[in-house]
Amino acid sequence: MTNRAALSRLSLNQRTTASWSLPEAVQGCVDAGLGAIGIWREPLAEVGLDEACRLVAESGLRVSSLCRGGFFTNPAEAPTAEARNREAIEEAAALNAATLVLVVGGLPPGDRDLEAARSSAAQAIEQLVPYAHELGVNLGIEPMNPIYAADRGVISTLAQALDIAERFDAADVGVVVDTFHLWWEPGVSEQLLRAGERIVSYQICDWITPLPADTLLARGMMGDGHVDFTAFSRSVAAAGYRGDVEVEIFNADLWAAPPTEVVNTMVERYLRLVQPYLGRDAP
Amino acid sequence: MTNRAALSRLSLNQRTTASWSLPEAVQGCVDAGLGAIGIWREPLAEVGLDEACRLVAESGLRVSSLCRGGFFTNPAEAPTAEARNREAIEEAAALNAATLVLVVGGLPPGDRDLEAARSSAAQAIEQLVPYAHELGVNLGIEPMNPIYAADRGVISTLAQALDIAERFDAADVGVVVDTFHLWWEPGVSEQLLRAGERIVSYQICDWITPLPADTLLARGMMGDGHVDFTAFSRSVAAAGYRGDVEVEIFNADLWAAPPTEVVNTMVERYLRLVQPYLGRDAP
Repeated sequence: MTNRAALSRLSLNQRTTASWSLPEAVQGCVDAGLGAIGIWREPLAEVGLDEACRLVAESGLRVSSLCRGGFFTNPAEAPTAEARNREAIEEAAALNAATLVLVVGGLPPGDRDLEAARSSAAQAIEQLVPYAHELGVNLGIEPMNPIYAADRGVISTLAQALDIAERFDAADVGVVVDTFHLWWEPGVSEQLLRAGERIVSYQICDWITPLPADTLLARGMMGDGHVDFTAFSRSVAAAGYRGDVEVEIFNADLWAAPPTEVVNTMVERYLRLVQPYLGRDAP
Repeated sequence: MTNRAALSRLSLNQRTTASWSLPEAVQGCVDAGLGAIGIWREPLAEVGLDEACRLVAESGLRVSSLCRGGFFTNPAEAPTAEARNREAIEEAAALNAATLVLVVGGLPPGDRDLEAARSSAAQAIEQLVPYAHELGVNLGIEPMNPIYAADRGVISTLAQALDIAERFDAADVGVVVDTFHLWWEPGVSEQLLRAGERIVSYQICDWITPLPADTLLARGMMGDGHVDFTAFSRSVAAAGYRGDVEVEIFNADLWAAPPTEVVNTMVERYLRLVQPYLGRDAP
Protein backbone atom coordinates (compact mmCIF):
# COMPACT_ATOMS: atom_id res chain seq x y z
CA MET A 1 0.00 0.00 0.00
CA THR A 2 1.33 3.42 -0.87
CA ASN A 3 1.74 5.90 1.94
CA ARG A 4 -1.03 8.05 0.48
CA ALA A 5 -3.47 5.16 0.39
CA ALA A 6 -2.50 4.18 3.92
CA LEU A 7 -3.23 7.70 5.11
CA SER A 8 -6.51 8.10 3.27
CA ARG A 9 -8.59 7.61 6.43
CA LEU A 10 -6.38 9.61 8.76
CA SER A 11 -7.78 12.91 9.99
CA LEU A 12 -6.16 15.69 11.99
CA ASN A 13 -8.41 17.13 14.63
CA GLN A 14 -7.55 20.80 14.93
CA ARG A 15 -7.08 20.61 18.69
CA THR A 16 -4.02 18.40 18.18
CA THR A 17 -2.23 21.32 16.53
CA ALA A 18 -3.94 24.09 18.48
CA SER A 19 -1.58 26.85 17.33
CA TRP A 20 -2.55 26.43 13.68
CA SER A 21 -5.32 28.54 12.20
CA LEU A 22 -7.85 26.72 10.04
CA PRO A 23 -6.04 27.62 6.78
CA GLU A 24 -2.76 26.41 8.28
CA ALA A 25 -4.34 23.19 9.52
CA VAL A 26 -5.92 22.51 6.11
CA GLN A 27 -2.56 23.07 4.45
CA GLY A 28 -0.87 20.86 7.06
CA CYS A 29 -3.28 18.02 6.28
CA VAL A 30 -2.75 18.39 2.55
CA ASP A 31 1.03 18.49 2.93
CA ALA A 32 0.97 15.34 5.07
CA GLY A 33 -1.28 13.51 2.62
CA LEU A 34 -4.18 13.04 5.03
CA GLY A 35 -7.71 12.36 3.87
CA ALA A 36 -9.65 14.49 6.31
CA ILE A 37 -9.71 17.16 8.98
CA GLY A 38 -11.71 17.59 12.18
CA ILE A 39 -12.70 21.24 12.55
CA TRP A 40 -13.42 23.22 15.70
CA ARG A 41 -15.97 25.99 15.76
CA GLU A 42 -13.71 28.64 17.31
CA PRO A 43 -11.02 28.63 14.58
CA LEU A 44 -13.83 28.23 12.04
CA ALA A 45 -15.36 31.49 13.29
CA GLU A 46 -12.04 33.23 12.81
CA VAL A 47 -12.11 32.68 9.04
CA GLY A 48 -15.88 32.57 8.58
CA LEU A 49 -18.02 29.72 7.30
CA ASP A 50 -17.94 30.66 3.59
CA GLU A 51 -14.18 30.94 3.46
CA ALA A 52 -13.85 27.71 5.44
CA CYS A 53 -16.09 25.88 2.98
CA ARG A 54 -14.04 27.23 0.09
CA LEU A 55 -10.75 26.19 1.72
CA VAL A 56 -11.99 22.71 2.48
CA ALA A 57 -13.47 22.17 -0.98
CA GLU A 58 -10.27 23.34 -2.64
CA SER A 59 -8.17 21.05 -0.44
CA GLY A 60 -10.11 17.93 -1.29
CA LEU A 61 -10.24 17.00 2.39
CA ARG A 62 -13.29 15.43 4.01
CA VAL A 63 -14.51 17.00 7.24
CA SER A 64 -14.53 14.08 9.62
CA SER A 65 -16.23 16.06 12.37
CA LEU A 66 -17.25 19.47 13.55
CA CYS A 67 -16.40 20.03 17.22
CA ARG A 68 -18.56 20.72 18.95
CA GLY A 69 -22.11 21.11 19.96
CA GLY A 70 -23.72 20.20 23.23
CA PHE A 71 -23.28 21.65 26.72
CA PHE A 72 -26.96 21.15 27.31
CA THR A 73 -27.10 20.48 31.01
CA ASN A 74 -27.08 23.93 32.58
CA PRO A 75 -30.73 25.06 32.70
CA ALA A 76 -29.63 28.69 33.02
CA GLU A 77 -28.03 28.43 29.57
CA ALA A 78 -30.69 26.35 27.85
CA PRO A 79 -31.98 29.01 25.41
CA THR A 80 -28.50 30.09 24.29
CA ALA A 81 -27.43 26.44 24.13
CA GLU A 82 -30.21 25.67 21.70
CA ALA A 83 -29.32 28.64 19.50
CA ARG A 84 -25.64 27.72 19.58
CA ASN A 85 -26.42 24.15 18.64
CA ARG A 86 -28.68 25.12 15.75
CA GLU A 87 -25.88 27.29 14.42
CA ALA A 88 -23.44 24.40 14.80
CA ILE A 89 -25.81 22.16 12.85
CA GLU A 90 -25.87 24.73 10.05
CA GLU A 91 -22.08 24.83 9.98
CA ALA A 92 -21.83 21.04 9.97
CA ALA A 93 -24.24 20.93 7.04
CA ALA A 94 -22.32 23.55 5.08
CA LEU A 95 -19.03 21.73 5.68
CA ASN A 96 -20.62 18.35 4.92
CA ALA A 97 -19.12 17.10 8.19
CA ALA A 98 -19.55 13.40 8.95
CA THR A 99 -20.93 14.37 12.35
CA LEU A 100 -21.45 17.21 14.77
CA VAL A 101 -19.75 16.05 17.96
CA LEU A 102 -21.91 16.57 21.03
CA VAL A 103 -20.23 16.98 24.42
CA VAL A 104 -23.31 17.04 26.58
CA GLY A 105 -22.01 19.05 29.53
CA GLY A 106 -21.47 18.38 33.22
CA LEU A 107 -23.51 18.97 36.34
CA PRO A 108 -25.05 22.43 36.55
CA PRO A 109 -23.24 24.67 39.07
CA GLY A 110 -24.08 23.62 42.62
CA ASP A 111 -26.25 20.76 41.40
CA ARG A 112 -25.56 17.13 42.31
CA ASP A 113 -28.41 15.42 40.50
CA LEU A 114 -26.57 13.35 37.94
CA GLU A 115 -29.70 11.50 36.82
CA ALA A 116 -31.46 14.77 36.11
CA ALA A 117 -28.48 16.10 34.15
CA ARG A 118 -28.40 12.95 32.09
CA SER A 119 -32.11 13.22 31.37
CA SER A 120 -31.86 16.84 30.38
CA ALA A 121 -29.02 16.02 27.98
CA ALA A 122 -31.17 13.37 26.31
CA GLN A 123 -34.09 15.78 26.07
CA ALA A 124 -31.95 18.50 24.54
CA ILE A 125 -30.70 16.06 21.91
CA GLU A 126 -34.28 15.08 21.13
CA GLN A 127 -35.13 18.74 20.56
CA LEU A 128 -32.26 19.13 18.09
CA VAL A 129 -32.96 16.03 16.03
CA PRO A 130 -35.63 17.51 13.71
CA TYR A 131 -33.41 20.40 12.67
CA ALA A 132 -30.39 18.13 12.24
CA HIS A 133 -32.50 15.76 10.17
CA GLU A 134 -33.78 18.62 8.01
CA LEU A 135 -30.22 19.70 7.27
CA GLY A 136 -28.88 16.15 6.89
CA VAL A 137 -26.52 16.39 9.85
CA ASN A 138 -25.67 13.49 12.12
CA LEU A 139 -25.50 14.30 15.83
CA GLY A 140 -22.66 12.32 17.39
CA ILE A 141 -23.05 11.74 21.12
CA GLU A 142 -19.62 11.54 22.71
CA PRO A 143 -19.45 9.53 25.91
CA MET A 144 -16.71 10.98 28.06
CA ASN A 145 -14.31 9.40 30.51
CA PRO A 146 -15.85 9.53 34.01
CA ILE A 147 -13.01 11.84 34.97
CA TYR A 148 -15.12 14.52 33.25
CA ALA A 149 -18.54 13.42 34.54
CA ALA A 150 -18.84 16.36 36.91
CA ASP A 151 -17.64 19.17 34.69
CA ARG A 152 -17.72 18.21 30.98
CA GLY A 153 -19.90 15.31 30.06
CA VAL A 154 -22.40 13.34 32.14
CA ILE A 155 -22.68 10.59 29.51
CA SER A 156 -19.95 8.25 30.72
CA THR A 157 -20.05 5.04 28.73
CA LEU A 158 -20.66 3.88 25.18
CA ALA A 159 -23.52 1.75 26.50
CA GLN A 160 -25.15 4.83 27.95
CA ALA A 161 -24.63 6.89 24.78
CA LEU A 162 -26.20 4.09 22.75
CA ASP A 163 -29.19 3.94 25.09
CA ILE A 164 -29.90 7.52 24.03
CA ALA A 165 -28.85 7.28 20.37
CA GLU A 166 -31.02 4.23 19.74
CA ARG A 167 -34.16 6.27 20.38
CA PHE A 168 -33.53 7.94 17.01
CA ASP A 169 -32.76 6.97 13.43
CA ALA A 170 -29.13 6.00 12.97
CA ALA A 171 -28.82 8.60 10.21
CA ASP A 172 -29.74 11.32 12.68
CA VAL A 173 -27.98 10.33 15.91
CA GLY A 174 -24.73 8.39 16.23
CA VAL A 175 -21.94 7.94 18.73
CA VAL A 176 -18.40 9.25 18.82
CA VAL A 177 -15.94 6.60 19.88
CA ASP A 178 -12.81 8.02 21.50
CA THR A 179 -10.17 5.69 22.90
CA PHE A 180 -9.28 8.12 25.69
CA HIS A 181 -12.84 8.09 26.95
CA LEU A 182 -13.69 4.43 26.43
CA TRP A 183 -10.56 2.30 26.64
CA TRP A 184 -11.41 1.13 30.18
CA GLU A 185 -15.13 0.37 29.62
CA PRO A 186 -15.98 -3.22 30.56
CA GLY A 187 -17.49 -4.97 27.54
CA VAL A 188 -16.59 -2.15 25.16
CA SER A 189 -16.03 -4.49 22.21
CA GLU A 190 -19.59 -5.81 22.58
CA GLN A 191 -20.87 -2.25 22.78
CA LEU A 192 -18.97 -1.37 19.61
CA LEU A 193 -20.68 -4.26 17.83
CA ARG A 194 -23.98 -3.05 19.20
CA ALA A 195 -23.18 0.44 17.90
CA GLY A 196 -22.46 -0.78 14.37
CA GLU A 197 -23.45 1.88 11.86
CA ARG A 198 -24.04 4.38 14.65
CA ILE A 199 -20.30 4.86 15.00
CA VAL A 200 -19.89 8.18 13.19
CA SER A 201 -16.42 9.08 14.42
CA TYR A 202 -13.40 7.16 15.65
CA GLN A 203 -11.14 9.48 17.63
CA ILE A 204 -7.82 8.29 18.95
CA CYS A 205 -5.37 9.34 21.59
CA ASP A 206 -3.72 7.62 24.51
CA TRP A 207 -4.33 7.42 28.26
CA ILE A 208 -1.08 8.37 29.92
CA THR A 209 0.09 8.07 33.53
CA PRO A 210 0.84 9.84 35.70
CA LEU A 211 -2.08 11.96 34.58
CA PRO A 212 -0.91 15.52 33.83
CA ALA A 213 -1.91 18.12 36.43
CA ASP A 214 -4.42 19.76 34.12
CA THR A 215 -6.81 16.92 33.40
CA LEU A 216 -8.22 18.73 30.38
CA LEU A 217 -4.82 18.34 28.77
CA ALA A 218 -4.24 14.81 29.95
CA ARG A 219 -4.21 13.06 26.60
CA GLY A 220 -1.22 11.42 25.00
CA MET A 221 0.08 10.54 21.56
CA MET A 222 -0.81 7.01 20.51
CA GLY A 223 1.82 4.66 21.86
CA ASP A 224 2.82 6.86 24.78
CA GLY A 225 0.29 5.34 27.18
CA HIS A 226 -1.82 2.36 28.08
CA VAL A 227 -4.38 2.02 25.30
CA ASP A 228 -4.29 -1.17 23.25
CA PHE A 229 -4.86 0.39 19.82
CA THR A 230 -4.62 -2.95 18.08
CA ALA A 231 -7.50 -4.50 20.00
CA PHE A 232 -9.60 -1.35 20.02
CA SER A 233 -9.15 -0.63 16.30
CA ARG A 234 -9.97 -4.23 15.44
CA SER A 235 -13.20 -3.93 17.44
CA VAL A 236 -14.10 -0.70 15.68
CA ALA A 237 -13.44 -2.37 12.33
CA ALA A 238 -15.42 -5.46 13.35
CA ALA A 239 -18.36 -3.16 14.07
CA GLY A 240 -18.26 -2.17 10.41
CA TYR A 241 -16.76 1.30 10.74
CA ARG A 242 -15.05 2.43 7.55
CA GLY A 243 -14.91 6.17 8.19
CA ASP A 244 -12.09 8.49 9.08
CA VAL A 245 -9.82 8.11 12.08
CA GLU A 246 -9.33 11.38 13.82
CA VAL A 247 -6.40 12.15 16.06
CA GLU A 248 -7.55 14.47 18.82
CA ILE A 249 -4.96 15.15 21.50
CA PHE A 250 -5.21 17.86 24.11
CA ASN A 251 -1.71 18.10 25.53
CA ALA A 252 0.35 21.11 26.56
CA ASP A 253 3.67 19.55 25.52
CA LEU A 254 2.36 18.78 22.03
CA TRP A 255 0.95 22.29 21.73
CA ALA A 256 4.39 23.69 22.51
CA ALA A 257 6.02 21.60 19.75
CA PRO A 258 6.15 22.65 16.07
CA PRO A 259 2.83 21.46 14.55
CA THR A 260 4.51 19.84 11.56
CA GLU A 261 6.54 17.63 13.88
CA VAL A 262 3.39 16.69 15.76
CA VAL A 263 1.73 15.69 12.48
CA ASN A 264 4.76 13.65 11.47
CA THR A 265 4.73 11.78 14.78
CA MET A 266 0.99 11.26 14.54
CA VAL A 267 1.37 9.81 11.03
CA GLU A 268 4.12 7.46 12.12
CA ARG A 269 2.17 6.20 15.14
CA TYR A 270 -1.02 5.81 13.12
CA LEU A 271 0.70 3.75 10.45
CA ARG A 272 2.30 1.52 13.06
CA LEU A 273 -0.37 1.17 15.76
CA VAL A 274 -3.74 1.79 14.17
CA GLN A 275 -3.97 1.62 10.39
CA PRO A 276 -2.99 -2.06 10.01
CA TYR A 277 -5.94 -3.07 12.22
CA LEU A 278 -8.70 -1.03 10.60
CA GLY A 279 -9.77 -3.58 8.03
CA ARG A 280 -10.42 -2.66 4.43
CA ASP A 281 -10.36 1.05 3.65
CA ALA A 282 -13.53 2.73 2.49
CA PRO A 283 -13.92 2.59 -1.30
CA MET B 1 -31.24 10.44 68.52
CA THR B 2 -28.25 11.10 70.77
CA ASN B 3 -25.02 12.08 69.08
CA ARG B 4 -23.45 8.80 70.17
CA ALA B 5 -26.22 6.73 68.64
CA ALA B 6 -26.05 8.80 65.46
CA LEU B 7 -22.32 8.10 65.20
CA SER B 8 -22.53 4.41 65.97
CA ARG B 9 -22.00 3.42 62.33
CA LEU B 10 -19.36 6.02 61.50
CA SER B 11 -15.85 4.73 60.94
CA LEU B 12 -12.59 6.60 60.46
CA ASN B 13 -10.39 5.09 57.80
CA GLN B 14 -6.81 5.64 58.89
CA ARG B 15 -5.82 7.22 55.59
CA THR B 16 -8.07 10.19 56.33
CA THR B 17 -5.81 11.12 59.24
CA ALA B 18 -2.58 9.79 57.77
CA SER B 19 -0.31 11.43 60.34
CA TRP B 20 -1.85 9.49 63.22
CA SER B 21 -0.30 6.20 64.33
CA LEU B 22 -2.71 3.33 64.95
CA PRO B 23 -2.87 4.01 68.73
CA GLU B 24 -3.54 7.69 68.02
CA ALA B 25 -6.24 6.87 65.48
CA VAL B 26 -7.93 4.42 67.86
CA GLN B 27 -7.93 7.07 70.58
CA GLY B 28 -9.21 9.66 68.10
CA CYS B 29 -12.15 7.41 67.20
CA VAL B 30 -12.97 6.78 70.86
CA ASP B 31 -12.75 10.48 71.71
CA ALA B 32 -15.08 11.36 68.83
CA GLY B 33 -17.59 8.67 69.79
CA LEU B 34 -17.27 6.68 66.57
CA GLY B 35 -18.28 3.04 66.32
CA ALA B 36 -15.50 1.70 64.15
CA ILE B 37 -12.12 2.17 62.52
CA GLY B 38 -10.72 1.19 59.11
CA ILE B 39 -7.15 0.00 59.56
CA TRP B 40 -4.27 0.06 57.07
CA ARG B 41 -1.62 -2.62 57.04
CA GLU B 42 1.36 -0.27 57.13
CA PRO B 43 0.50 1.49 60.43
CA LEU B 44 -0.66 -1.90 61.72
CA ALA B 45 2.81 -3.30 61.08
CA GLU B 46 4.34 -0.46 63.07
CA VAL B 47 2.66 -1.58 66.28
CA GLY B 48 2.39 -5.30 65.52
CA LEU B 49 -0.72 -7.42 65.18
CA ASP B 50 -0.98 -8.54 68.82
CA GLU B 51 -0.74 -5.03 70.19
CA ALA B 52 -3.21 -3.80 67.55
CA CYS B 53 -5.73 -6.50 68.52
CA ARG B 54 -5.33 -5.53 72.18
CA LEU B 55 -5.82 -1.81 71.42
CA VAL B 56 -8.89 -2.44 69.31
CA ALA B 57 -10.47 -4.83 71.83
CA GLU B 58 -9.87 -2.37 74.67
CA SER B 59 -11.37 0.49 72.64
CA GLY B 60 -14.60 -1.32 71.89
CA LEU B 61 -14.35 -0.25 68.25
CA ARG B 62 -15.32 -2.52 65.37
CA VAL B 63 -12.83 -2.88 62.54
CA SER B 64 -14.87 -1.91 59.51
CA SER B 65 -12.12 -2.91 57.08
CA LEU B 66 -8.52 -3.86 56.72
CA CYS B 67 -6.84 -2.03 53.84
CA ARG B 68 -5.62 -3.61 51.81
CA GLY B 69 -4.95 -6.75 49.90
CA GLY B 70 -4.81 -7.22 46.18
CA PHE B 71 -2.33 -5.92 43.60
CA PHE B 72 -2.63 -9.19 41.77
CA THR B 73 -2.11 -8.18 38.18
CA ASN B 74 1.65 -8.02 37.79
CA PRO B 75 2.75 -11.56 36.90
CA ALA B 76 6.31 -10.77 38.02
CA GLU B 77 5.00 -10.24 41.55
CA ALA B 78 2.48 -13.08 41.66
CA PRO B 79 4.24 -15.26 44.25
CA THR B 80 4.92 -12.39 46.66
CA ALA B 81 1.40 -11.08 46.05
CA GLU B 82 -0.09 -14.37 47.17
CA ALA B 83 2.06 -14.46 50.31
CA ARG B 84 1.19 -10.85 51.11
CA ASN B 85 -2.49 -11.52 50.66
CA ARG B 86 -2.47 -14.62 52.85
CA GLU B 87 -0.81 -12.57 55.58
CA ALA B 88 -3.45 -9.85 55.12
CA ILE B 89 -6.19 -12.46 55.49
CA GLU B 90 -4.61 -13.60 58.77
CA GLU B 91 -4.54 -10.02 60.04
CA ALA B 92 -8.14 -9.42 59.00
CA ALA B 93 -9.17 -12.57 60.87
CA ALA B 94 -7.28 -11.57 64.02
CA LEU B 95 -8.83 -8.09 63.95
CA ASN B 96 -12.28 -9.48 63.12
CA ALA B 97 -12.43 -6.98 60.27
CA ALA B 98 -15.71 -6.80 58.35
CA THR B 99 -13.74 -7.21 55.14
CA LEU B 100 -10.28 -7.28 53.64
CA VAL B 101 -10.39 -4.59 50.94
CA LEU B 102 -8.93 -5.80 47.65
CA VAL B 103 -7.49 -3.26 45.23
CA VAL B 104 -6.75 -5.54 42.34
CA GLY B 105 -3.93 -3.62 40.67
CA GLY B 106 -3.42 -1.95 37.31
CA LEU B 107 -1.90 -3.04 34.03
CA PRO B 108 1.46 -4.78 34.39
CA PRO B 109 4.37 -2.53 33.33
CA GLY B 110 4.50 -2.18 29.56
CA ASP B 111 1.38 -4.33 29.13
CA ARG B 112 -1.79 -3.04 27.48
CA ASP B 113 -3.98 -6.13 27.71
CA LEU B 114 -6.74 -4.93 30.00
CA GLU B 115 -8.85 -8.05 29.48
CA ALA B 116 -5.96 -10.25 30.55
CA ALA B 117 -5.29 -8.12 33.62
CA ARG B 118 -8.95 -8.34 34.58
CA SER B 119 -8.91 -12.11 34.17
CA SER B 120 -5.77 -12.52 36.21
CA ALA B 121 -7.30 -10.44 39.01
CA ALA B 122 -10.34 -12.72 39.07
CA GLN B 123 -8.12 -15.81 39.09
CA ALA B 124 -6.02 -14.49 41.95
CA ILE B 125 -9.16 -13.83 43.98
CA GLU B 126 -10.33 -17.37 43.28
CA GLN B 127 -7.03 -18.70 44.62
CA LEU B 128 -7.43 -16.76 47.86
CA VAL B 129 -11.01 -17.72 48.59
CA PRO B 130 -10.34 -21.09 50.27
CA TYR B 131 -7.91 -19.56 52.77
CA ALA B 132 -10.20 -16.60 53.42
CA HIS B 133 -13.10 -19.00 53.93
CA GLU B 134 -11.05 -21.11 56.32
CA LEU B 135 -10.26 -18.06 58.43
CA GLY B 136 -13.76 -16.57 58.13
CA VAL B 137 -12.59 -13.47 56.26
CA ASN B 138 -14.65 -11.71 53.62
CA LEU B 139 -12.71 -10.53 50.56
CA GLY B 140 -14.11 -7.18 49.45
CA ILE B 141 -13.49 -6.38 45.80
CA GLU B 142 -13.20 -2.64 45.37
CA PRO B 143 -14.12 -1.33 41.92
CA MET B 144 -12.06 1.77 41.25
CA ASN B 145 -12.81 4.93 39.33
CA PRO B 146 -11.59 4.49 35.72
CA ILE B 147 -9.09 7.23 36.43
CA TYR B 148 -7.08 4.44 38.11
CA ALA B 149 -7.73 1.69 35.55
CA ALA B 150 -4.18 1.82 34.19
CA ASP B 151 -2.21 2.04 37.41
CA ARG B 152 -4.27 0.94 40.46
CA GLY B 153 -7.31 -1.12 39.74
CA VAL B 154 -8.55 -2.68 36.51
CA ILE B 155 -11.98 -3.44 37.99
CA SER B 156 -13.82 -0.25 37.04
CA THR B 157 -17.51 -0.63 37.86
CA LEU B 158 -19.69 -2.15 40.55
CA ALA B 159 -21.31 -4.27 37.83
CA GLN B 160 -17.93 -5.69 36.92
CA ALA B 161 -16.97 -6.33 40.55
CA LEU B 162 -20.26 -8.17 41.07
CA ASP B 163 -19.69 -10.29 37.99
CA ILE B 164 -16.62 -11.63 39.79
CA ALA B 165 -17.97 -11.68 43.33
CA GLU B 166 -21.07 -13.66 42.33
CA ARG B 167 -18.92 -16.63 41.38
CA PHE B 168 -18.40 -17.19 45.11
CA ASP B 169 -20.44 -17.42 48.31
CA ALA B 170 -21.50 -14.01 49.56
CA ALA B 171 -19.90 -14.77 52.92
CA ASP B 172 -16.54 -15.19 51.20
CA VAL B 173 -16.46 -12.46 48.55
CA GLY B 174 -18.20 -9.11 48.70
CA VAL B 175 -17.85 -5.67 47.17
CA VAL B 176 -16.58 -2.40 48.57
CA VAL B 177 -18.77 0.51 47.60
CA ASP B 178 -16.91 3.82 47.53
CA THR B 179 -18.69 6.97 46.40
CA PHE B 180 -15.52 8.40 44.85
CA HIS B 181 -15.16 5.38 42.62
CA LEU B 182 -18.80 4.78 41.74
CA TRP B 183 -20.75 8.05 41.89
CA TRP B 184 -20.76 8.38 38.08
CA GLU B 185 -21.65 4.75 37.20
CA PRO B 186 -24.78 4.57 35.04
CA GLY B 187 -27.37 2.41 36.77
CA VAL B 188 -25.44 2.28 40.03
CA SER B 189 -28.59 2.19 42.18
CA GLU B 190 -29.73 -0.96 40.36
CA GLN B 191 -26.28 -2.46 40.82
CA LEU B 192 -26.43 -1.68 44.54
CA LEU B 193 -29.74 -3.54 44.76
CA ARG B 194 -28.16 -6.39 42.85
CA ALA B 195 -25.24 -6.36 45.30
CA GLY B 196 -27.49 -6.60 48.37
CA GLU B 197 -25.76 -8.53 51.11
CA ARG B 198 -22.51 -8.50 49.15
CA ILE B 199 -21.93 -4.89 50.14
CA VAL B 200 -19.36 -5.36 52.87
CA SER B 201 -18.11 -1.81 53.11
CA TYR B 202 -19.54 1.61 52.37
CA GLN B 203 -16.72 4.13 51.99
CA ILE B 204 -17.45 7.78 51.47
CA CYS B 205 -15.61 10.78 50.16
CA ASP B 206 -16.34 13.37 47.51
CA TRP B 207 -15.37 13.93 43.88
CA ILE B 208 -13.95 17.42 43.65
CA THR B 209 -13.10 19.61 40.68
CA PRO B 210 -10.75 20.79 39.48
CA LEU B 211 -9.10 17.49 40.20
CA PRO B 212 -5.92 18.04 42.29
CA ALA B 213 -2.66 17.61 40.41
CA ASP B 214 -1.81 14.36 42.19
CA THR B 215 -4.74 12.15 41.27
CA LEU B 216 -3.96 9.75 44.09
CA LEU B 217 -4.82 12.56 46.50
CA ALA B 218 -7.82 13.80 44.55
CA ARG B 219 -10.53 13.00 47.08
CA GLY B 220 -12.57 15.53 48.97
CA MET B 221 -14.50 15.84 52.23
CA MET B 222 -18.18 15.03 51.85
CA GLY B 223 -20.00 18.16 50.75
CA ASP B 224 -16.98 19.76 49.07
CA GLY B 225 -17.67 18.21 45.69
CA HIS B 226 -20.23 16.75 43.31
CA VAL B 227 -21.43 13.54 44.92
CA ASP B 228 -25.10 13.33 45.88
CA PHE B 229 -24.68 11.62 49.25
CA THR B 230 -28.40 11.66 49.92
CA ALA B 231 -29.28 9.64 46.84
CA PHE B 232 -26.27 7.34 47.09
CA SER B 233 -26.75 6.60 50.80
CA ARG B 234 -30.44 5.92 50.27
CA SER B 235 -29.55 3.42 47.54
CA VAL B 236 -27.02 1.72 49.80
CA ALA B 237 -29.66 1.53 52.55
CA ALA B 238 -32.27 0.25 50.10
CA ALA B 239 -29.86 -2.55 49.21
CA GLY B 240 -30.05 -3.64 52.84
CA TYR B 241 -26.66 -2.45 54.02
CA ARG B 242 -26.57 -1.89 57.77
CA GLY B 243 -22.81 -1.93 58.35
CA ASP B 244 -20.34 0.80 59.10
CA VAL B 245 -19.78 3.87 56.98
CA GLU B 246 -16.11 4.54 56.54
CA VAL B 247 -14.67 7.92 55.65
CA GLU B 248 -11.61 7.42 53.48
CA ILE B 249 -10.13 10.60 52.07
CA PHE B 250 -6.73 10.87 50.43
CA ASN B 251 -6.06 14.59 50.32
CA ALA B 252 -2.87 16.55 50.91
CA ASP B 253 -4.69 19.54 52.42
CA LEU B 254 -6.49 17.35 54.94
CA TRP B 255 -3.27 15.58 55.81
CA ALA B 256 -1.70 18.96 56.59
CA ALA B 257 -4.53 19.87 58.97
CA PRO B 258 -4.68 18.81 62.65
CA PRO B 259 -6.29 15.32 62.64
CA THR B 260 -8.76 16.19 65.40
CA GLU B 261 -10.13 19.03 63.27
CA VAL B 262 -10.46 16.68 60.31
CA VAL B 263 -12.42 14.22 62.45
CA ASN B 264 -14.68 17.01 63.71
CA THR B 265 -15.43 18.14 60.16
CA MET B 266 -16.01 14.57 59.06
CA VAL B 267 -18.47 14.00 61.93
CA GLU B 268 -20.37 17.20 61.11
CA ARG B 269 -20.60 16.35 57.39
CA TYR B 270 -21.61 12.76 58.10
CA LEU B 271 -24.40 13.80 60.45
CA ARG B 272 -25.72 16.31 57.94
CA LEU B 273 -25.20 14.62 54.56
CA VAL B 274 -25.11 10.87 55.13
CA GLN B 275 -26.46 9.56 58.42
CA PRO B 276 -30.07 10.74 57.97
CA TYR B 277 -30.34 8.70 54.77
CA LEU B 278 -28.90 5.40 55.97
CA GLY B 279 -32.12 3.86 57.18
CA ARG B 280 -32.35 2.04 60.49
CA ASP B 281 -29.06 1.53 62.30
CA ALA B 282 -27.80 -1.96 62.86
CA PRO B 283 -29.09 -3.42 66.14
